[in-house]
Amino acid sequence: MSSYTITENEMEAIATGGAFLGTGGGGDPYIGKLMAQSAIAQHGSVKVIPPEDVPDDWLCVPVCMMGAPTVMVEKLPSGDEAGRALEQLEAFLGRKADALICIEAGGLNSTIPFAVAAATGLPLIDGDGMGRAFPELQMVSFTMQGVAATPMVITDEKGNSSVINAISNLWTERLARSQTVEMGGAALVALYPMSGAEVKKSILRNTLSLIFEIGSIITGERSENRNPAAALIERLNGKRLLTGRVVDIERKTEGGFARGQATLKGMDDDEGRTFKVNFQNEFLIALNDKDEALAVTPDLICALDADGGLPVTTEQLRYGLAITMMGLPCDAQWRTEAGIKLVGPGYFGYPQAYTPLEELPL
Amino acid sequence: MSSYTITENEMEAIATGGAFLGTGGGGDPYIGKLMAQSAIAQHGSVKVIPPEDVPDDWLCVPVCMMGAPTVMVEKLPSGDEAGRALEQLEAFLGRKADALICIEAGGLNSTIPFAVAAATGLPLIDGDGMGRAFPELQMVSFTMQGVAATPMVITDEKGNSSVINAISNLWTERLARSQTVEMGGAALVALYPMSGAEVKKSILRNTLSLIFEIGSIITGERSENRNPAAALIERLNGKRLLTGRVVDIERKTEGGFARGQATLKGMDDDEGRTFKVNFQNEFLIALNDKDEALAVTPDLICALDADGGLPVTTEQLRYGLAITMMGLPCDAQWRTEAGIKLVGPGYFGYPQAYTPLEELPL
Repeated sequence: MSSYTITENEMEAIATGGAFLGTGGGGDPYIGKLMAQSAIAQHGSVKVIPPEDVPDDWLCVPVCMMGAPTVMVEKLPSGDEAGRALEQLEAFLGRKADALICIEAGGLNSTIPFAVAAATGLPLIDGDGMGRAFPELQMVSFTMQGVAATPMVITDEKGNSSVINAISNLWTERLARSQTVEMGGAALVALYPMSGAEVKKSILRNTLSLIFEIGSIITGERSENRNPAAALIERLNGKRLLTGRVVDIERKTEGGFARGQATLKGMDDDEGRTFKVNFQNEFLIALNDKDEALAVTPDLICALDADGGLPVTTEQLRYGLAITMMGLPCDAQWRTEAGIKLVGPGYFGYPQAYTPLEELPL
Repeated sequence: MSSYTITENEMEAIATGGAFLGTGGGGDPYIGKLMAQSAIAQHGSVKVIPPEDVPDDWLCVPVCMMGAPTVMVEKLPSGDEAGRALEQLEAFLGRKADALICIEAGGLNSTIPFAVAAATGLPLIDGDGMGRAFPELQMVSFTMQGVAATPMVITDEKGNSSVINAISNLWTERLARSQTVEMGGAALVALYPMSGAEVKKSILRNTLSLIFEIGSIITGERSENRNPAAALIERLNGKRLLTGRVVDIERKTEGGFARGQATLKGMDDDEGRTFKVNFQNEFLIALNDKDEALAVTPDLICALDADGGLPVTTEQLRYGLAITMMGLPCDAQWRTEAGIKLVGPGYFGYPQAYTPLEELPL
């Protein structure tokens, strides 16, 4: 891979692909796209560089939004506002950042770094810390590789901020989450400041290129009046989990998260069946009518509107909506013992053990 | 007033007087006293200097503990641990502190600054921000005089910390309180960094000398087998509110505070009457059997054990305990419109209007 440039036009595919890999979480991508496009229109396009091109001694910083997606979309900042957390982290470290990182290649947080990159003129590294979206900040490859989440800056739109220094990335999550809740449910953060050497050791590679490709596939298939599910399953080695209509949806915003469960009645090939899908910001576990898991976190559970073929987020779920869900295998490191401990079903309180998607029934 | 020195012996009176002006809050003073005595034994005595002697360009910092007193006494740190928040604030400001301040002349927080002063060798300024204890950090004369609570450092015993920068002292309270809860209910903080000029403008003067004097009166009266209530009421222009026995006590630790209500059956002169006392860390309002207020925050409501004559804190209240409660007029600035807004009954959600103690019935 080599460097390339993302302009306003390409943000369309980035946002669509990001919404897909958002696995239901991370907020409405339409708003994030507008935010990034506005920043690019004002400040110029964004340079995306491969991890291999990052010098070892660069300071590289993920910038993102933290909170319940339902609240995040209501408090969406401009690229300049989103850059404030970065500025304060730079002030604390006494050093300017050399490049930005996308913490999760999903949802709003796949578009916000483009807005900050446009506003600051900094390059964005082609990769992320999750290869998808996850609800908590310690759930990144950076944690797996020993990179500290702190010093971390958390800011709100009113002008409040904190610099957190914690003894572990899980403690960072706890302290930052309580600040996020106090700040109104969503906050802008800059965290995991790391060297270029650490980036090369820990980042999941080329995932920004991947979401651009996914977005392009979705757009291409839709322009041919095909639902993109089949093409995506083939490209991403996934499998179709279900096609169904939402008949019940429970949700609540608690502890700074959007938690809930959707019940779906099967359609088409799944006529007569019932499914349940649990989520905490993201889809985390899909169950069939025998309560057997069809797909379990950290494997990806992605939803497309069965009619329009666009990615569906958990907050878009509503009675009567027809969706196709597919499972995708997660990055290999999430399937290690340490990975399952960090992001597996047990962490989220589900009784199911993790079983790789490929070995599960339908 | 001139400078003087506090040794291990004098901490006895400081702790007793601090418990009295703690108005029921701030944690068991016995533990705070041991902590300060241990620090003085290890590092040497503490110099107390009058505000007038503080050069305008000094950096002066209050250090204290924040949280529910019930938890604070369980997590009590050493003088060195308590100094960590100060060290981190100094690091953030890029400057060493020249003197320490007592944020509240009541409870544990009247003794903790002595422990930190002993451990650091810094002088302690004779005064405080409340002239009593209050439950929230914005409730200080410093707020009334426009001193910002931030940058503020909050630390826990595990090694976590945050530097908070907030748009107001009330926002500082909100953000620090949620961190305190997340840190386990009690935290060590350094806040309101201010110049010597600001100290002279805003500190409530000579309150450390006052708690030493109060403690000496209590000790003196007890050694003569007298309950100290009468002597304290005379010295502090107070009035006796009630003597009674606790017959019911409701309490819960919520939102980082110890909240509750005690019901007392009158004894001696108050035989046949019933009283209620509401508290949030501190005693905030005392009511007679007609639900008429006897004393209302910000005026002070102080309790002494009716038998032993020692100050009683809200967490020491238990069924059957006999106490004498007295009301003391608060500092004049708390009785201004701004003062009542900051610390009056309305802020705490009580329906009663503030009426000065002197105008209330018995």
